[in-house]
Amino acid sequence: MASEPTLSASKESIPQTEPPPPVERFKYSDRVFLRSILGRADGGKGLAGQRVLVGGWVKSGVEKQKPVVPSSMSPGAAVHPIVKDVTCAEVLINRLPILRSIARILTGGGCNALPLGKPDGPPKPVTTVGYLRISDGSCAANLQVVVDSSLHPLSQILPTGTSILVEGVIAIPKVPGKYAVELEAEKVLYVGGVDADKYPLSKGLLSKAFLRAYPHLRPRTSMVASIARIRNSLSHSTHQFFQSNGFLNVQMPIITTTNLRNHSKMFEVSILSSKADDSLRLAAINDQEAKTLETIKAAIKEKSKRIEELKRSNSNKEALLTALQDLQKANELAHQLEHKHTSILTKTKKEDFSENFFGRQAYLSSSTQLHLESYASSLSCVYSFGPTFQVEDVQPSKSLAESWKVEVELAFAKLEDAMNCAEDFLRYLCHSIIEHCPHDIQFMYKRIDNKCIDRIKSMGSSPFERISYTDAVEILNKLLNCVFKRFEEKVEWGTILSREHESILADEIYGRPVIIYDHPKDSKPFYLRVRDDFKTVSAFDIIAPKAGKLVQGGQKEERLDKLIDRGRKLGLVQKDYNWYLDLRRHGTVQHSGFSAGLEEIVMFVTGLDDIRDAIPFPRNRGSADT
Amino acid sequence: MASEPTLSASKESIPQTEPPPPVERFKYSDRVFLRSILGRADGGKGLAGQRVLVGGWVKSGVEKQKPVVPSSMSPGAAVHPIVKDVTCAEVLINRLPILRSIARILTGGGCNALPLGKPDGPPKPVTTVGYLRISDGSCAANLQVVVDSSLHPLSQILPTGTSILVEGVIAIPKVPGKYAVELEAEKVLYVGGVDADKYPLSKGLLSKAFLRAYPHLRPRTSMVASIARIRNSLSHSTHQFFQSNGFLNVQMPIITTTNLRNHSKMFEVSILSSKADDSLRLAAINDQEAKTLETIKAAIKEKSKRIEELKRSNSNKEALLTALQDLQKANELAHQLEHKHTSILTKTKKEDFSENFFGRQAYLSSSTQLHLESYASSLSCVYSFGPTFQVEDVQPSKSLAESWKVEVELAFAKLEDAMNCAEDFLRYLCHSIIEHCPHDIQFMYKRIDNKCIDRIKSMGSSPFERISYTDAVEILNKLLNCVFKRFEEKVEWGTILSREHESILADEIYGRPVIIYDHPKDSKPFYLRVRDDFKTVSAFDIIAPKAGKLVQGGQKEERLDKLIDRGRKLGLVQKDYNWYLDLRRHGTVQHSGFSAGLEEIVMFVTGLDDIRDAIPFPRNRGSADT
Repeated sequence: MASEPTLSASKESIPQTEPPPPVERFKYSDRVFLRSILGRADGGKGLAGQRVLVGGWVKSGVEKQKPVVPSSMSPGAAVHPIVKDVTCAEVLINRLPILRSIARILTGGGCNALPLGKPDGPPKPVTTVGYLRISDGSCAANLQVVVDSSLHPLSQILPTGTSILVEGVIAIPKVPGKYAVELEAEKVLYVGGVDADKYPLSKGLLSKAFLRAYPHLRPRTSMVASIARIRNSLSHSTHQFFQSNGFLNVQMPIITTTNLRNHSKMFEVSILSSKADDSLRLAAINDQEAKTLETIKAAIKEKSKRIEELKRSNSNKEALLTALQDLQKANELAHQLEHKHTSILTKTKKEDFSENFFGRQAYLSSSTQLHLESYASSLSCVYSFGPTFQVEDVQPSKSLAESWKVEVELAFAKLEDAMNCAEDFLRYLCHSIIEHCPHDIQFMYKRIDNKCIDRIKSMGSSPFERISYTDAVEILNKLLNCVFKRFEEKVEWGTILSREHESILADEIYGRPVIIYDHPKDSKPFYLRVRDDFKTVSAFDIIAPKAGKLVQGGQKEERLDKLIDRGRKLGLVQKDYNWYLDLRRHGTVQHSGFSAGLEEIVMFVTGLDDIRDAIPFPRNRGSADT
Repeated sequence: MASEPTLSASKESIPQTEPPPPVERFKYSDRVFLRSILGRADGGKGLAGQRVLVGGWVKSGVEKQKPVVPSSMSPGAAVHPIVKDVTCAEVLINRLPILRSIARILTGGGCNALPLGKPDGPPKPVTTVGYLRISDGSCAANLQVVVDSSLHPLSQILPTGTSILVEGVIAIPKVPGKYAVELEAEKVLYVGGVDADKYPLSKGLLSKAFLRAYPHLRPRTSMVASIARIRNSLSHSTHQFFQSNGFLNVQMPIITTTNLRNHSKMFEVSILSSKADDSLRLAAINDQEAKTLETIKAAIKEKSKRIEELKRSNSNKEALLTALQDLQKANELAHQLEHKHTSILTKTKKEDFSENFFGRQAYLSSSTQLHLESYASSLSCVYSFGPTFQVEDVQPSKSLAESWKVEVELAFAKLEDAMNCAEDFLRYLCHSIIEHCPHDIQFMYKRIDNKCIDRIKSMGSSPFERISYTDAVEILNKLLNCVFKRFEEKVEWGTILSREHESILADEIYGRPVIIYDHPKDSKPFYLRVRDDFKTVSAFDIIAPKAGKLVQGGQKEERLDKLIDRGRKLGLVQKDYNWYLDLRRHGTVQHSGFSAGLEEIVMFVTGLDDIRDAIPFPRNRGSADT
């Protein structure tokens, strides 16, 4: 891709000739969102002269010296700023820290910044000015705030991470540069300080891996803030898409006792910790007893040894007798203590299930789909959008213990209906993210993945490829054989396609999303509808370039006997999902659906490689500290 | 309230003079939502003659006899139906089952329905027709589908709960009645049968308590379907409100290790069940050993007794010696077995936390608020909307173990900003629910609560009352004393207001929502901002008539020292919430927020009394079976 693709931000393309609308104020404080200034087509220029209140966190701050402005100058002068005579070198020096350092060494100066401008005549007394780049999270752009040192001690407001609430006037910068407008501060109303030595995000451009250790602070970086806005936009567009197509949003339960998966693969929910705590505390209190027990046991060992000696010497029967009687007493005491200890532990263990809150084992649901089918079997078209839980021990960069899923179910619908709906959904998201987050997507393009814009536009514009699983296997084998010459790597019909196989199809062969349908029966959940060949089920996956599997779905088995039969063959206990069978017993319908992971969609859009960067607080093995 | 309040369904008030738009088809199948027909201002009349495909579940079905239509009649005749000559009595008889029974007895007939119309001349051979009321969940209204017995055996499609996919022509009913249009079936494409004897919802008008036993089937009832649509509308309006005001939706974690509440009040998450199972299984396998141990212990007891006897008799020292040596061996064996048993149990117990998935105790979050503050401290205005978890043992009708909450946080915002935002939010919901769900609200008005429309309109139109906690206590005491003459019931300053106190304020004194602010410090969480009086905190509750507390919120403590101090006084361990303190260490801001329970809002809107009816699958103590 040679040139940077452009994004049409239709919402923001206000013709320059129209009078600019007045700055929009946030309804729930006197503050103005930076987006209301910087998100305009003119970058805020049309608002010059307006007095506003803004708040945000300092991304970077520098202190510069400036000549004293003649006292006759009116305060309103900031609106029509004097463009100073600065050389290009000076601008560069003030922008790039390394040049600044070099300049400082060359000029022998000890100050932080070089004086700007060339004062006429003899040097005048100078005050300093702070130039802060601040962000309030409302848009990708930062606002430059110019604070005179007379307003607030600059050392308190310059450090990265400082929060500041400031009133000022929007102005065209005196020094033309990257900012269309800046804010000339008039009042500093609030400052939340930062100790630069202790603030972990003081340094610029931190790695994603470093930032992961500070999930509570990382949204202050431009990258994580952009991801958050993209995620917000995708979430809202999800609701917009389904609502506008007549689906009802239903909230399905997280806590479930219906476990049709391998039990060990689900998180268990209980309120037993307090009891476990009690028994552990009891055990701790009984440390004294444990020590006593150890002492007694040591004594028993000692006594037994002595008895053995006495026996061997065969000399003093009276002494042996006394020793044996002594040992007996020690044994009795040890027995008593041990029995007490064992019974506490056994009791705690046995109470586990009978005293649990829900009266039986309860789990965190890995999918709302079973419950969603219940609502589809009455309200016909429904979706859920919420967290799901998986005990996965693969690479933490690839899966999360807690992740957000959109799950969709359509009654009176066949496989193709669900495929059409899922494809439309993904394409809608592509259109809307380009429309609503153009600057954040541009940021991702520059910082993370220079193919993301092409990828989003391509998905949004052209229909997905659709092939059956059987065809996919054939195509893969041909390619592995004839093109890649990887003869030993034949894909066997029936195996689950690997991440690499999916990537070959989506990235290399088709270069766009691929829907693979009609999968082998045993590679998919038991509730998918068996085809007449008895080998495949009406399932489908949508594989996207870069991100891999974005959607999984299919037509569900609506025939009671077939569903029971498949469950039985898998060894499922009917009473565990009898309510689910009820949906087939009473007024069953053909129905289809799919689920899509929000984090995977975020990764597709942004080009992020690590799923832990696609969610605010990632949960993984050993990782839920914040 | 004398007359029924009217709802202005602005979206649906299409002037009758405009040509009706063609029927809107669902995008992901050939089906037409019933809403697209019945939700129109003309009730669907303008669509008469259009051929459509509809699907749904039978709410009720009756079979009637009709004279054979002369064969010369064209199939298109259904579009211009013949209005038959029926008497008012006949209509009544056919509508009301009791009259039908009486008529049957009077006429000595044994059939299910009386023949309609008065055939001229000698009786002709008759066919039967099924009249089905079906619903597809898309709107509150049902569609009457008329199916000739020649199309499908009527006995298979008449039972309540049957699913049916049918193609037909929209027609004005032949017998004028409650339906503006009906569907003259031409093809029955799919039927999902019901065994009326086994289907739990066969009977009409089932109690809410009865329906709670069938959470997977109850959305097929008109009431639960209406609640689901209202809930959907409230959920979507929640997103609309916050998105349109510049808030970002962020998804905060469910699994948390930050527990600042009483530990016993949170659900614990683990993957230990499989391990616990293992150790229990191991214990079962070791039953044999346990029995051996018991036998040995019995032998030890026996031997000890024998030794005592030998000692008392003081006769045979040799025998005593042998007995003692014998006992020693038994003791050693018992020790060995017991040690094995204890160590298995102790090991299982000790491994609990170190081998847990997250490396430490993890819980289900009861509020996303702490994490939300992190995102507010960088993105400034955020909200979350998802499930939260509470271990509550109050009445199951009043609280849930799993419930959905909207949580909101505003940076650079004080108490009043959050109060304004929460009030606007609730009022927005009231306006939008009236606009988007007029028929469902009408249904609730008729079936559940004839005050609900007034209540919604009142909240939507007039500003909330705002009083401080101190004033609320004073007003309550005055009222209890002077009006109710309940002298003994003085409300002490500092106590949490009871449900009854809240009701007196909202329902009886003000008759509208009340915001009570500035609560006693100890009645609210430690992170709320302490006022200068050191007695109160910047908290607020919104109390609504009928539903009670809808919102809780306040300004959070942004001062590090004050927050640490309050935490210390409550005995919190600083390392448990150090990350939360970081938000105050680095660039702290004044910030405020609130949370609102979706179920409580549903109850306010619908007038439902039991919270278990306000959520699809309620979770409570002993109740998570479906």
